[in-house]
Amino acid sequence: MDNRKIGVFDSGLGGLSVVREMRKIMPAESIVYFGDTARLPYGSKSRAVITDFSRQITRFLLEQDVKAIVIACGTASTNALDTLRSEFDVPIIGVAEPGARSAVRASRSGRIGVLGTEATVKSGAFDKMIHQLAPEAEVISQACPLFVPLVESGWFHDAITDRVAERYLQPLIEEGVDTVVLGCTHYPLIKEAIGQAVGKDVKLINVSKEAVLEIRDFLDRMDMLARGGESTCEFYASDSIDHMASFAELVLGMGGLTANKIDIEKYDKR
Amino acid sequence: MDNRKIGVFDSGLGGLSVVREMRKIMPAESIVYFGDTARLPYGSKSRAVITDFSRQITRFLLEQDVKAIVIACGTASTNALDTLRSEFDVPIIGVAEPGARSAVRASRSGRIGVLGTEATVKSGAFDKMIHQLAPEAEVISQACPLFVPLVESGWFHDAITDRVAERYLQPLIEEGVDTVVLGCTHYPLIKEAIGQAVGKDVKLINVSKEAVLEIRDFLDRMDMLARGGESTCEFYASDSIDHMASFAELVLGMGGLTANKIDIEKYDKR
Repeated sequence: MDNRKIGVFDSGLGGLSVVREMRKIMPAESIVYFGDTARLPYGSKSRAVITDFSRQITRFLLEQDVKAIVIACGTASTNALDTLRSEFDVPIIGVAEPGARSAVRASRSGRIGVLGTEATVKSGAFDKMIHQLAPEAEVISQACPLFVPLVESGWFHDAITDRVAERYLQPLIEEGVDTVVLGCTHYPLIKEAIGQAVGKDVKLINVSKEAVLEIRDFLDRMDMLARGGESTCEFYASDSIDHMASFAELVLGMGGLTANKIDIEKYDKR
Repeated sequence: MDNRKIGVFDSGLGGLSVVREMRKIMPAESIVYFGDTARLPYGSKSRAVITDFSRQITRFLLEQDVKAIVIACGTASTNALDTLRSEFDVPIIGVAEPGARSAVRASRSGRIGVLGTEATVKSGAFDKMIHQLAPEAEVISQACPLFVPLVESGWFHDAITDRVAERYLQPLIEEGVDTVVLGCTHYPLIKEAIGQAVGKDVKLINVSKEAVLEIRDFLDRMDMLARGGESTCEFYASDSIDHMASFAELVLGMGGLTANKIDIEKYDKR
């Protein structure tokens, strides 16, 4: 048993979809969440910068005495996970590996689509993970740079979001995929638009949920699950938390959220 | 005469529309450009963070021995200009004041629309400047958070961009504006879509061009214009410059751009 908190971070608010799943699947766990709202989004940035930012956040979370860290950001998971694991002595779980594993299990044809940010697609991380599990699989990746701003605009159910989804999904449909990985933690929030664009025969993989199942299994194996006591949820961000509070309310159905702004740039990035 | 460089900065690449106008209108001037590509966009961030980032960039530009600084970013112009002017001893020109002045001159009805990022609209800076010049004017502001990612996606002439423009402009049309300020340096790059949405009787104010006319007049009055010699253009960014190079080629029609990545976080932000 280990009642310490789990650290969760994202470039901004998309990672709250991971917090939502954690509270459903493992409600006894306490969470400390950090959203890098001063520097979001990560999806258009380089691997070097994404890694630097992720290091700073990891140092901040370790200061909070976390027992494990979940990278609740597709872009940081695909660009910084290996480096963080090699440099820090804490269990770190990303959203990409569990997502890739679930996609391989779900696909019958072996033709798998991956949606992600530009940095995620450029990293090739999903392709590599899927091919390690299923060398014969065909992976068709698509960068979706407008999905994050559409989600952050709250245009979840909107004709424009539908048209953008159709545009991004068209090449995957033409390639005949039977499974599509939502490779960014923002995307589950517009999964209706994405589902409509691909049709109901294509399976969508929610990486947020898969990552939470993975961390639960891991903590269980290590006998590190929290037991009893009251679980807590703390929120930190690098910019003002006004927007975070209303977004969290929307995603988590929690009112009266309090959050703290911290200066993430003071943490060492090397 | 003063042949030192002019410093130009933006959150990213939109400010290149200012560089384009500078090279047309004042080709003898040498330019040092900084794009904060590691932390862009600024439009969704708070005044405090935008001001911190702008201070760091101003310190970097002063190190390059610039004779003046142009804030080629609507968001930083509306959120950080006054603070920078009070703290630094170099002429600093933003894009908002020249844009507001031009809008007041252009409008016959006094009903003026302002398009900007969320942070620009929240700052109320355009309203304030327009009302100082024309107390009776009606200002109708509209935040357009999807325009920057649409521009960065290169969807300049695109049915989806047209529909987003129609959505954002609808309230301004209903209010009967006769002039619309493109209050972000990205927006001139999709001015066809915006023009189509408002109709041809509405005047569009290109803040990039107005800011360049203002800095030229200022330097002329101070006898600080460059004369003769070869003008240069240097580019710096806080993230990898691959994307910057191709975007600059598109906007400036310049090939073979070289740029340097610098660590902007090492500059003091207070």
